[in-house]
This record gives sequence, structure tokens and C-alpha cells, in this order.
Amino acid sequence: MQAARRRQDILTKPQGSLGRLEDLSIQIAGVTGQATPRLEHKVVLVMAGDHGVVAEGVSAYPQEVTLQMVLNFLHGGAAINVLARHAGARVVVVDMGVASDLPASPGLRVHKIGYGTGNIARGPAMGREQAIQAIVAGATVLQEQLSIGLDVLATGDMGIGNTTPSAAIAAALTGQPVEEIAGRGTGVDDAGLQRKIQAIRRALEINQPDPQDGLDVLAKLGGFEIGGLAGAILAAAANRRPIVVDGFISTAAAMIAVSLAPTVRDYLIAAHTSQEYGHHAMMSWLGVSPLLDLKMRLGEGSGAVLAMSLVEAACKTLAEMATFGEAGVSEKGAE
Amino acid sequence: MQAARRRQDILTKPQGSLGRLEDLSIQIAGVTGQATPRLEHKVVLVMAGDHGVVAEGVSAYPQEVTLQMVLNFLHGGAAINVLARHAGARVVVVDMGVASDLPASPGLRVHKIGYGTGNIARGPAMGREQAIQAIVAGATVLQEQLSIGLDVLATGDMGIGNTTPSAAIAAALTGQPVEEIAGRGTGVDDAGLQRKIQAIRRALEINQPDPQDGLDVLAKLGGFEIGGLAGAILAAAANRRPIVVDGFISTAAAMIAVSLAPTVRDYLIAAHTSQEYGHHAMMSWLGVSPLLDLKMRLGEGSGAVLAMSLVEAACKTLAEMATFGEAGVSEKGAE
Repeated sequence: MQAARRRQDILTKPQGSLGRLEDLSIQIAGVTGQATPRLEHKVVLVMAGDHGVVAEGVSAYPQEVTLQMVLNFLHGGAAINVLARHAGARVVVVDMGVASDLPASPGLRVHKIGYGTGNIARGPAMGREQAIQAIVAGATVLQEQLSIGLDVLATGDMGIGNTTPSAAIAAALTGQPVEEIAGRGTGVDDAGLQRKIQAIRRALEINQPDPQDGLDVLAKLGGFEIGGLAGAILAAAANRRPIVVDGFISTAAAMIAVSLAPTVRDYLIAAHTSQEYGHHAMMSWLGVSPLLDLKMRLGEGSGAVLAMSLVEAACKTLAEMATFGEAGVSEKGAE
Repeated sequence: MQAARRRQDILTKPQGSLGRLEDLSIQIAGVTGQATPRLEHKVVLVMAGDHGVVAEGVSAYPQEVTLQMVLNFLHGGAAINVLARHAGARVVVVDMGVASDLPASPGLRVHKIGYGTGNIARGPAMGREQAIQAIVAGATVLQEQLSIGLDVLATGDMGIGNTTPSAAIAAALTGQPVEEIAGRGTGVDDAGLQRKIQAIRRALEINQPDPQDGLDVLAKLGGFEIGGLAGAILAAAANRRPIVVDGFISTAAAMIAVSLAPTVRDYLIAAHTSQEYGHHAMMSWLGVSPLLDLKMRLGEGSGAVLAMSLVEAACKTLAEMATFGEAGVSEKGAE
């Protein structure tokens, strides 16, 4: 990081004038241990799962949309496919717990922990063993992608109803009131939002998650895809790869990862501010500051791949710009 | 724009969930007159010029850095070269009025209106004829690039001292007090900032620019590169090409263009919030809202090429995503 900082200061620009690009390049130098890191192989992991809590009427879309959207990802027609192509990133789709079986596809990894989680308003999302399985599966996928080539990870999610467990996880870990965390997700109306807030309150009361135990929070409030993402994040950090965290659901997964291993925080880059209420409190708990604010609320990793391109650009400025000496440009004068 | 809006609403995502990307795609549809516009050919025009007002000690860098940085652009070693390569954009460098002659280079267009402007703290930057010449030269360069291929324009600048004329133009057109517009540019200290504020106040007092006459403001407060950019912006709008406006200097040029032809406003996309004090007032005068806030203050078009990539991504989502019908995805349910 010191070498990167020193180099940034002699590149042909006023010191600090590239703002957050300079900070990013220095962070990535620290993450990777390379003074001029290159992020050639870019991967977005889109993890999918279903959620029993949809029985409480918390989502604007029917549960089968999870499956349908996974098929859309595999056919290349979703926003994440378009944005990943634009960013030059590889899309890897993982079935962590969709409620029905998907047809085999070369682009799909299957690590199904169950056919949807339990309804958290009535009991735990999953058993503690399943939470561990989800994390191990996420780490396994990440290791597999590392062997193909992965210099930077972007996280993404798909799961009808999954802003509800994410908000529950956020409320449990931050201690913020549920009504200040929960939002409209894909677009529930006022009555739907009230049902969602009630469902999260019941989930917290019935399950009594221990905020000191990230695995307990994951098991009780759940999301197989959230567990999978937490595992991938842990494995990426362990392998010194930067992690670009997407919006609301991915941030909940990052919070689980940081609960389990606080040093993971240093490897995270917050992609963007989600339109989802409560995302600010989550980012503030993580101590990260988002790169973009484009009023997005889609998930899938859509914000993360846009931000990943900025992170790559930041590393390129560090590696490719000429220094004052090389270019024969006069430095800042004495005043 | 209506066709683009209708298509955004049937693409496989909750309506509005791509936030500003949706708005951008609809704006570009209106600008180009195409329901699914493609931004294949991306060009950043970096216009360079020198400024007599540097005699007042308003910059942290010596004047020869303008020439040295133009050479750096031509050798591919500056931030704009790296970021434009990342965005897949062509860099076109224009000498609009550097204080000394540059060696001929295939990447350089020479439209030198003079060897630096007059010192605006003592008199006008240029004659009214020169202001017209600068605008015509900018429009000429734009037309030339259109013939090679230009689907979207990013603006960029180089000119030691040019935050001073830009702040003067902004103060003249917005009517805001100079001390609320002027900032530290490439990094002047407190005494330098005071000299800069005094120089701008004198420029306004001595020259008495007419805020109703954009050409008068340009001539008196100047910048050959600012005039060139204003001309390029006018010509891009006339040819229905979207214009991604960089930071402080480019925004001053956009203000001149809008003063001359108010409908140009609809063709503008504000790339980012400059760290330079006063940029907010300028964007608010233009009625635009920046896409990025990365604490950058470099110029060269560095923020504009980053934002241009987001604009391209926005158009790709509109053109390439599957609709609900095509993908067999259920639409939002009744609640």
C-alpha cells in the first residue's frame, strides 16, 4: 500500500486529484499484496435461493420468478448478463436453494442446501448444519472460480422475498429498529410493507438470534444464497481477492462474513447505495462508503459489476499512467 | 422516448429498479431519436489552452505544464489516456491556444486561436471575433469526428490556470458571489486562493460581462479551450449526439453553450461532481444532476469517460435485456 501511495503521488496529475480512484488502487494493492495490481479476470457470482417467508405476503412477485429469473440468467437475457458483458466479467450462477429443480446447464453450479428456507416468521430459516453447508458451498464455488481465474469478485443474488431475511439480518446485527431497516424490495405497497415489518419483528422475537454469533444469525434469519455469498466472500478474502459488494442482500451477506471474520472488512468495496431503506445503516455498520448512487434496487450484482469497472479503472491508472519524470512534466511549484 | 419508456417497463426487472440507468437510456433515446440507441463510437475531446491570468499567481503549477501535459496525452501516459482505453473511447487532443507551438502529431488537431488568452484581471481574455473563431473551431473538430464516427461525446480540458476563467464565467452567469464559486484548482494554498478570488473579482469589474450574452461572457472571461468545447457541445447537440460533460471547466463551457442555445441543455449528461468549490451552483444553473461523485478534480475528461461507460451500459440494458414475455418470467402479482 505504501508503494502504491508513493507511485500515485508521482503520476502526472495533481496529488489526490483522482479522488476515490486513488484510494481504491491503494486498497487493492493492500488486498492483493501487489504494488500495481491488475484485475484481469472479473467474476460476478449470482447466488439464488427461495424463502419460506414469502408465505407472509412480503413480496410483490410470485415465488416462481426466482426459478424463471435463474433461467433468464442462463440464457443471457437479464440485466446482470448485459452489464457483466459490458464490464468484461464472467457470470457464474449458483442454485443455493431454489424451491424447485433447475434443468442442467453449463453455466449453472448446483449446491442446493434445500428447496427454499423455512418461514422465518414461524421458526428458523435453516438448521445450523445447513448454514455451515451454505458457507462451505459458497467457498467451494469461489475456489473453483479461482482455479479458472478470478482477480476480483462481484457478488449478486436472486431470490423472491430475500430483502426480508436481509433486513432481518441487518436489524439483528445493527440493533436498529425494523421499521428503519425494511423497505419495499421489488415494490410492495403500503400494506405489503406493513406485513413485511411484522414478519421481521416476529422472526426476531421467535428466533432470538445471537448478534455475537454470525452463524446463528444466518441459520435463524437465513437465506441459502446469503449464506453462499458469505462463504464466497470469506474465501475471496482468504485468497486476497478484492470483493465488490452489491446492494441490500449482498451487504447482508457481507455482514454475516464480517461477523464470522472481522478482518474481511478490509477486502470489501461497497458498490453502490441501494434504494432499499436501511442500506445506509448496514454500510455504516460495515464501515464502508459506496462508490455509486444510481438509485438502483435490482440486485443480481447489477450495481457491483458497474462498480467493478471503476475499481479496474482505478488499478489501471496506478499501473499505466506516466510519472512526472517519465513524461518530463514539471511538478507543483513553490508558492 | 415513449417507446424507450414502454420497453424499459417490460424488461425482466421490477419497473424502475435500474434507477438512473433507465432515465439515461430514455434521455439518449430522445437525444438520438432512436428507440434503442447504441453508443458504439465514443470520443473524448481534450481541448487545451493557456491563460494570461496565471500572471496573477492563481495556479499551483507553472504554465509550461499545459504544453507538457498535451505531449503526455499524445504519448498516451496521462489519466485520460488510461481511462479512455478502459472505456473504449478515442482521445482527440486539440490545441486551441497553448502558449507555445507543439510538434506535429497524428493525434493532435491544431486550431490555435492565440498563444494564451489575455489576463482577465487586466482586460478581456480575447476579442469577440476570437470567441467566435474558438466556437467555430470546436464545431469543426466535432464535425470531423462525426465523419469518422461519433455516437457520444465526452468533453475534456487542459490548461494551467483554467479554473480561474471557469469560475469567472460561472460567477457571471449564475450571479453567485465569487468566494462561493472559486476553489483551489490543482491545489493552491490559502494565499493563492485569495489571489484567485481577487483576480476573478477584478475580471468581473473591469470587463463587465453581459450575462445575457454568452459570447460576451466567453470573450471577456475567456479560455480558448472553453470556447472550443462550447462549440463542440453546440455541434454535438445539433447532430443529436449525447454529450457527457466533465467537471468544472467543461461545465463552464456547457454553460456558454446553453447561454447561446438553451435547448442544448436536453443533450447534456453531467458526469460527476467536481471537488472544485462552486461546481454545484453551476450544475444547478444548468439543471443537471451528476452521475458520479468520486472526489475527483483532475479535468482532462477523466470523469466524463468514466460516466460515458455508464451511459453506454444504460443503453445496452435497454437494447439487450429480454422482456418478461421473451423470457417467460411472471410479472408483478396483484396484492
